Amino acid sequence: MSAPKKVVLAYSGGLDTSIILKWLQTEYGCEVVTFTADLGQGEELEPARQKAEMLGIKPDNIYIEDVREEFVRDFVFPMFRANAVYEGLYLLGTSIARPLISKRLVEIAAETGADAVAHGATGKGNDQVRFELSAYALNPEIKVIAPWREWDLTSRTKLIDFAEKNQIPIAKDKRGEAPFSVDANLLHTSSEGKVLEDPAQDAPEYVYQRTDSPEEAPDTPEYIEITFEKGDAVAINGEALSPATILTRLNEYGKTHGIGRLDFVENRFVGMKSRGIYETPGGTILLEAHRGIEQITLDSGAGHLKDSIMPRYAELIYNGFWFSPEREMLQALIDKSQEHVSGTVRLKLYKGLARTVGRWSDHSLYSEAHVTFEEDAGAYDQKDAQGFIQLNALRLKLLAARNRRLKG
Amino acid sequence: MSAPKKVVLAYSGGLDTSIILKWLQTEYGCEVVTFTADLGQGEELEPARQKAEMLGIKPDNIYIEDVREEFVRDFVFPMFRANAVYEGLYLLGTSIARPLISKRLVEIAAETGADAVAHGATGKGNDQVRFELSAYALNPEIKVIAPWREWDLTSRTKLIDFAEKNQIPIAKDKRGEAPFSVDANLLHTSSEGKVLEDPAQDAPEYVYQRTDSPEEAPDTPEYIEITFEKGDAVAINGEALSPATILTRLNEYGKTHGIGRLDFVENRFVGMKSRGIYETPGGTILLEAHRGIEQITLDSGAGHLKDSIMPRYAELIYNGFWFSPEREMLQALIDKSQEHVSGTVRLKLYKGLARTVGRWSDHSLYSEAHVTFEEDAGAYDQKDAQGFIQLNALRLKLLAARNRRLKG
Amino acid sequence: MSAPKKVVLAYSGGLDTSIILKWLQTEYGCEVVTFTADLGQGEELEPARQKAEMLGIKPDNIYIEDVREEFVRDFVFPMFRANAVYEGLYLLGTSIARPLISKRLVEIAAETGADAVAHGATGKGNDQVRFELSAYALNPEIKVIAPWREWDLTSRTKLIDFAEKNQIPIAKDKRGEAPFSVDANLLHTSSEGKVLEDPAQDAPEYVYQRTDSPEEAPDTPEYIEITFEKGDAVAINGEALSPATILTRLNEYGKTHGIGRLDFVENRFVGMKSRGIYETPGGTILLEAHRGIEQITLDSGAGHLKDSIMPRYAELIYNGFWFSPEREMLQALIDKSQEHVSGTVRLKLYKGLARTVGRWSDHSLYSEAHVTFEEDAGAYDQKDAQGFIQLNALRLKLLAARNRRLKG
Amino acid sequence: MSAPKKVVLAYSGGLDTSIILKWLQTEYGCEVVTFTADLGQGEELEPARQKAEMLGIKPDNIYIEDVREEFVRDFVFPMFRANAVYEGLYLLGTSIARPLISKRLVEIAAETGADAVAHGATGKGNDQVRFELSAYALNPEIKVIAPWREWDLTSRTKLIDFAEKNQIPIAKDKRGEAPFSVDANLLHTSSEGKVLEDPAQDAPEYVYQRTDSPEEAPDTPEYIEITFEKGDAVAINGEALSPATILTRLNEYGKTHGIGRLDFVENRFVGMKSRGIYETPGGTILLEAHRGIEQITLDSGAGHLKDSIMPRYAELIYNGFWFSPEREMLQALIDKSQEHVSGTVRLKLYKGLARTVGRWSDHSLYSEAHVTFEEDAGAYDQKDAQGFIQLNALRLKLLAARNRRLKG
Repeated sequence: MSAPKKVVLAYSGGLDTSIILKWLQTEYGCEVVTFTADLGQGEELEPARQKAEMLGIKPDNIYIEDVREEFVRDFVFPMFRANAVYEGLYLLGTSIARPLISKRLVEIAAETGADAVAHGATGKGNDQVRFELSAYALNPEIKVIAPWREWDLTSRTKLIDFAEKNQIPIAKDKRGEAPFSVDANLLHTSSEGKVLEDPAQDAPEYVYQRTDSPEEAPDTPEYIEITFEKGDAVAINGEALSPATILTRLNEYGKTHGIGRLDFVENRFVGMKSRGIYETPGGTILLEAHRGIEQITLDSGAGHLKDSIMPRYAELIYNGFWFSPEREMLQALIDKSQEHVSGTVRLKLYKGLARTVGRWSDHSLYSEAHVTFEEDAGAYDQKDAQGFIQLNALRLKLLAARNRRLKG
Repeated sequence: MSAPKKVVLAYSGGLDTSIILKWLQTEYGCEVVTFTADLGQGEELEPARQKAEMLGIKPDNIYIEDVREEFVRDFVFPMFRANAVYEGLYLLGTSIARPLISKRLVEIAAETGADAVAHGATGKGNDQVRFELSAYALNPEIKVIAPWREWDLTSRTKLIDFAEKNQIPIAKDKRGEAPFSVDANLLHTSSEGKVLEDPAQDAPEYVYQRTDSPEEAPDTPEYIEITFEKGDAVAINGEALSPATILTRLNEYGKTHGIGRLDFVENRFVGMKSRGIYETPGGTILLEAHRGIEQITLDSGAGHLKDSIMPRYAELIYNGFWFSPEREMLQALIDKSQEHVSGTVRLKLYKGLARTVGRWSDHSLYSEAHVTFEEDAGAYDQKDAQGFIQLNALRLKLLAARNRRLKG
Repeated sequence: MSAPKKVVLAYSGGLDTSIILKWLQTEYGCEVVTFTADLGQGEELEPARQKAEMLGIKPDNIYIEDVREEFVRDFVFPMFRANAVYEGLYLLGTSIARPLISKRLVEIAAETGADAVAHGATGKGNDQVRFELSAYALNPEIKVIAPWREWDLTSRTKLIDFAEKNQIPIAKDKRGEAPFSVDANLLHTSSEGKVLEDPAQDAPEYVYQRTDSPEEAPDTPEYIEITFEKGDAVAINGEALSPATILTRLNEYGKTHGIGRLDFVENRFVGMKSRGIYETPGGTILLEAHRGIEQITLDSGAGHLKDSIMPRYAELIYNGFWFSPEREMLQALIDKSQEHVSGTVRLKLYKGLARTVGRWSDHSLYSEAHVTFEEDAGAYDQKDAQGFIQLNALRLKLLAARNRRLKG
Repeated sequence: MSAPKKVVLAYSGGLDTSIILKWLQTEYGCEVVTFTADLGQGEELEPARQKAEMLGIKPDNIYIEDVREEFVRDFVFPMFRANAVYEGLYLLGTSIARPLISKRLVEIAAETGADAVAHGATGKGNDQVRFELSAYALNPEIKVIAPWREWDLTSRTKLIDFAEKNQIPIAKDKRGEAPFSVDANLLHTSSEGKVLEDPAQDAPEYVYQRTDSPEEAPDTPEYIEITFEKGDAVAINGEALSPATILTRLNEYGKTHGIGRLDFVENRFVGMKSRGIYETPGGTILLEAHRGIEQITLDSGAGHLKDSIMPRYAELIYNGFWFSPEREMLQALIDKSQEHVSGTVRLKLYKGLARTVGRWSDHSLYSEAHVTFEEDAGAYDQKDAQGFIQLNALRLKLLAARNRRLKG
């Protein structure tokens, strides 16, 4: 890789990415463009602007954007159409944000004539893979700089030294090591590392930052109704809302009722296991509700096909292949299934649990006439079951007869 | 089908199967053998013996058996090794009991020289399919009688009339129609029909018979530890227990903490949707714990393969294909994966939720040395990630380059 | 099912469907509309019109249509985009024609005010299922009459008697039983039954009607080029042709060179095995060519995903679920993959074999720069492979280390 | 990686691995053990011994072994039970040999106290991955040396120079570059590179070394019978033979009749496409025969499940994951399916084609009684098909009714 001349950095305004910013300037001598996105992580963005300016970035080279609606509309919602969970439990809250950041990095590189992008993910995790696969998929010529894989600032002490030498301000609580590492966006907050590294030990309560504990949640359940159109949530309790607003509201409900906590050991794409604490309050409600509305609007053939490809779809997102032909092919399949996934789900929220307790839809495939225990009105002829069973059994009978024959 | 001469009936001792018993005697004029199994449904079996005798069954023709250990050991546990859930949520509590009943029916038929078996499942449900596919798979010559598909006792009134005419005692509360229909075994209780037929309406609290409501559950969490060997639970809080005892204990924990309630609309194999209320207290805890122990003992390649075939495995069980070559093939795959799924999981039980909060094992694949945020001891070379990403990205770059070339 | 009043019959003009026509008139007393389609089966259609008129069908009720272009464009080509083969070998020639026939039957029923459709498939085969599932999927109210499952004309003698009684002309060679049964359309000819019923016995050469034997094929190979656009063949040897014309031409090439013969025992959806002789001359060439062009234009992620869902897609078509949500979902996935499957394949045709020997495309993803054995121009850094292997190996090492630890 | 002290080299005795041998001695100063295997590649092994001795290897450090039986019995046959083909066409002839070589390298390392193994695969191909993943899976501590990724002998000229400087004899025809590169074992011969690099160009006839051209094959077909037991071939024309002998014989048949040539562009695991010419004469016959015997002995449920996982199984082998938990899990599934895959297949071999024309077995599931066109003997009740279709159609009807309701 030839030396980059101008690099777009995914910049949070925090200490680590500020160090990267300075390191890029000093190590590569290259011009830096910063990109700071509001993905719903719950931090002010303006301090990032000031800090970037202070570190010598020209105003034109500072990009600060609220991408929450795009994030939910074009990434989170398509993923939830699939009921995607990784390894049975993880709602992919970190994974789904990375492609969007890479997409903007590459776009800003094109706008500003930059030939490289940079990110602050380490060499041990999945995020480096997600950032870089997305970047390369969108621009095969782009250079990607991953300082954590390159530099020798391999300890907290060295980082702090570098910051001090380079006049990067250090907040008091950043001098020592954080007891764990956090990533957050509108969909979730993840915590990992340090005090969480022993998967046998309970996570301390203070790790949970996004949700109240179920024990402290209200003692009376709350009921809400979520309305879907073509697989996407469009209203809560009858109020039409934008995608990001819906997720924000659901996060509030989830926080209050202690919903969406997960203590999880997962398999990273790079080969090792890691333990994380995930909080996905709104997403956990949304997944339950989406399954609820699919229950009455989705045909079994469609639903079972979706279920069977879901693990692969989730793995692709986890591994960083959002911008790959196979993810897009699976999305085409999933989206096709959602044409009639419209209607309303009623949920009970209570002390950590979100449960579907009712669902209705003009698109419903549920037929009381067919299923009723009441005397039949002729919708269904029970005698048909005889033939259905006989033909389904035929091959089993032939197998059994063969086995008997061989045994003598 | 030529007329059966001797039939083994799955007999609960209740009104409906007593009517069937009499109907078989009168309609087919055939000798009846009754089989009553204790699957953990929580009913006394001796009354069934007395009732059978009263209806003219010879003592030698009355089979009453406690099959709980076999049920859990040979059916429930193998299924839980797969983390099987049907349509994302249903733990298959009814489905998994049917093959065992059929197996015993067919075996008793062989012992008693019977040429037929009979069951009390209706022509609209899945259970008829499960009973009959299992029976035919085990004995291709067996005749199966499904009175509900044949007779003209198509209303409650006609059934009661038939019972009265035939001196079948009718408990007072059986004269009218039950507000819903129930199936129970050691794994779960299901309720469906009547008051539950409108999936928009909340299920009344009185439908839940197996679990206390989360609202009434204790206000303090309880922690338990479940130990696994080769994928099966073998101990609770360090106490080694038999399979059925483990499930019984877990049911008690689950009942107390309001765990395992599900309000569900599912797709029946016979083609329509139906709504059921499922309570699977112990099973819900067991599934969570099994996932927890797999998190540290199962390799990602193994785990992802298991996840990808699980929906098919669950569908096979739901549809009644337990005794099929493909279920056995999948079981071979699953069992192969469980050789090292041994260790202990710590769970927090609280108001409807069972959550893994810790797990440890001699068989653990979790390596703190690889994942640590601390300075590396050399277990992992972050620079390897560079090559890993480059080669994973190569095809995406080639795609992007192709697309650019075509655009101009 | 209430009695049908007007029925649209899939009518070939042959003896069997003429008997059905008359039987519908006499048994059900209903008005009959005939539908005779040119699917490329190689028979004149006008005799069908004359025969229908002779049997009393009003001219307005006689539908005769050339549907070959629709057949290839909307059914055969979409299926070939998937490289669909059933059970490893069968190109689904019969299966893919049935949905089109049902679609037209249902449409003609709507046009003519008919409340039923009828077909001449027996109660043992797959075709009844395919006809009827398609019909019901397109019109849930339609009645379907399958005379072979209903009537008592269960032997050749009874059929001939019925025909004679009803003045249905009988061709001399139809008096006795045919030595085997044939289905044909533009994609294939299938032969089964009678002389073919013993799967241990070679099929006699006279069974093959659609292809010359490889032994009699030319002693010199012929080379052709097929051009694709978005997964569909659009030209042969540079000449742009319509879908049906392309398949017709490929059939001629295939016939000449003895290509596309298959002696096959398959699993029917209705539960038993059957043996058939299939001849798919053009389709066999087309499949090979399509695979050839995908080799250079399809990314591995896309290709492997397609391969993994293909068996399910093929099974759906075989079983008659063309008009199902899940087939349409899979089609959406497949079609998405074909956007760049454009280019030209060169094939060698010789004595039964069609082999790709060259392929080129503007959409090619093949990069000589990356693969070359020549000294590198920098497109690929071999050292990247080191990291790629290390991270792919990491979990295997952790597994091996775990197993060693436990053993020693 | 610390410096290796003793290394086991996969040694062919050819120029390239002789250079590697010397390079290991000079570059790493380490003791070298050579392992030369007879995998059926058709070369004498004793010259490798002499050459190794000449290059200074101690007799005790020279391992020369005939592993053909192990190769076919433990690698080729298990793979053929799955009908494994990669990307629709490739029989995995190179892929399947690598794990065996790695296994012996690692075993010999243990026997000789070596801490490293080395291979001669380049940094661009799949073989490096296969060798190394296998080695690491068998010994997580082993060091692997891949000289082609390390050294600076990056051109033919440099290699020849190195050889001359080190007194490595150079056969005359090795001075210049070979027109293509070859790998061979008992299962296949692959050729790639140089004259084959343009996938649009026909491969010259001289590339094919393992098979006679179909044009030159005999003008009369030959018929053979292959007998299987539990999925493995055990006899040809009634003569019981060892695994390697069977494959050897089938190779002879295939060579004579020009069977098993493939011109293929594939997707390498390392990310690019490559074009190869594969000749798999015996394997092509074996695959056809195995499918033939499965046709009558394998149930549809079993067969369809096998078909659906096959692409994943093949990909695992192609990518080098033979010694992975997921390959072993799939193998368990596949082997379970083969318990009754016993019987005999008759094949016609003629000018490039191997076609099943008959098959029979005591384990056959084919039932003429069920499938016959003759008047029924009661094995099958055609009326059962009515109910079978109705219940399969039910969900499609409900879908169609829903869609009508919404439209009107």
